Amino acid sequence: MTHHLEEIEAIKRLKYKYLRCVDSKMWDELAECFIPDATTSFSSGEYSYQGVDAIINFLREGLNPNMLSMHHGHHPEIELTSDTTATGTWALEDYVIMTDLNMSLHGAAFYHDEYVKVNGEWKIKSTGYDRVFEEIWNRGDIPSLKVTKSMHALPNPE
Amino acid sequence: MTHHLEEIEAIKRLKYKYLRCVDSKMWDELAECFIPDATTSFSSGEYSYQGVDAIINFLREGLNPNMLSMHHGHHPEIELTSDTTATGTWALEDYVIMTDLNMSLHGAAFYHDEYVKVNGEWKIKSTGYDRVFEEIWNRGDIPSLKVTKSMHALPNPE
Amino acid sequence: MTHHLEEIEAIKRLKYKYLRCVDSKMWDELAECFIPDATTSFSSGEYSYQGVDAIINFLREGLNPNMLSMHHGHHPEIELTSDTTATGTWALEDYVIMTDLNMSLHGAAFYHDEYVKVNGEWKIKSTGYDRVFEEIWNRGDIPSLKVTKSMHALPNPE
Repeated sequence: MTHHLEEIEAIKRLKYKYLRCVDSKMWDELAECFIPDATTSFSSGEYSYQGVDAIINFLREGLNPNMLSMHHGHHPEIELTSDTTATGTWALEDYVIMTDLNMSLHGAAFYHDEYVKVNGEWKIKSTGYDRVFEEIWNRGDIPSLKVTKSMHALPNPE
Repeated sequence: MTHHLEEIEAIKRLKYKYLRCVDSKMWDELAECFIPDATTSFSSGEYSYQGVDAIINFLREGLNPNMLSMHHGHHPEIELTSDTTATGTWALEDYVIMTDLNMSLHGAAFYHDEYVKVNGEWKIKSTGYDRVFEEIWNRGDIPSLKVTKSMHALPNPE
Repeated sequence: MTHHLEEIEAIKRLKYKYLRCVDSKMWDELAECFIPDATTSFSSGEYSYQGVDAIINFLREGLNPNMLSMHHGHHPEIELTSDTTATGTWALEDYVIMTDLNMSLHGAAFYHDEYVKVNGEWKIKSTGYDRVFEEIWNRGDIPSLKVTKSMHALPNPE
């Protein structure tokens, strides 16, 4: 039997891969994180999707090349509920630069996730978050503000 | 004997619960994180309190419903000093929207904590932090800036 | 043989010490984190240095007393590649207040590190990051913005 600390580490790794793929826009690798009939309930249910294809389509469109995003997950509180199921609460900080609209979004939230172990690998069964707060602003209000580097295409003009 | 990695995971979980309760304004659950005669030394000793009631009162008042807060703890360096005592250093990033004053606070700090295991459960004996920096600004300087979502009451007007 | 979870915890601790020393400007303790011929490739290779002395000199100069910095590392994905070698991917958020230039820098990146165990202690063999984004602004665009606290010398005037 695998030690429960190894299961917890494996679930953290799943979440870290998920978050890395989101900000790297690696959509095929991101899809590997979910079971086929996974569900989401982002932003207190405003963005609810069912099935990995619908989820990936939502994220790919919402985080299209005009979006430079940071999604950081903190404070994992993982509970193993059986040998093959688990729940997790995380704190999220996200920051998104919308280069086309010249807007920024900054937020904090708590994720509530369900995980399931399939063929020895932990996958996301459901994920969602409730907003502690979300704030937005027009980047033009800070005239000197500009993006200076990115692994993604840089906005033009900036 | 419990393995030391399990003790470290349990202490991290204690801190994560503490931080989750702070930003969720769950004051009763927050009180469970402390021993009765716990002490704090927040902001390099500016906010020093003794006893769990004084600590919770300070936090409940300081983070009243006008405050939308994010407190994220990173980089745990936990040292077990005996079977029932431990110390911990953490990096903090905090961000607070003061909806009544229309101000924001952003800071970074290092926590220095002491923990004690009582009846098999780790509790906070002392906690405090030293500021790497703290900065504040009037949100009115960014005219378009507004809070768009919160699990707490939304500021009015915004 | 040490359990692999202990090795992973030790490598995380190395990174946390590194990040703590960077923001605390503890350059001698920071040097302990590296092997003598370590290399860096910060900001997609823009800041490439070889040898611990060159690395520390770069960081000490770049993060001189005019700089108040926050470097937070998240999402550790550590792979043990042998008993004495490992690789790691991390998410970085950094925020730097340049008090002399009255500028701020905010960024997100992915670290790609190599570690090596020497005389029973994990050390950084190479470290570097690729920017998800980096943005800068003139703090004077937000007239009320001021630094209110720091463990380092406070900017003057502020």
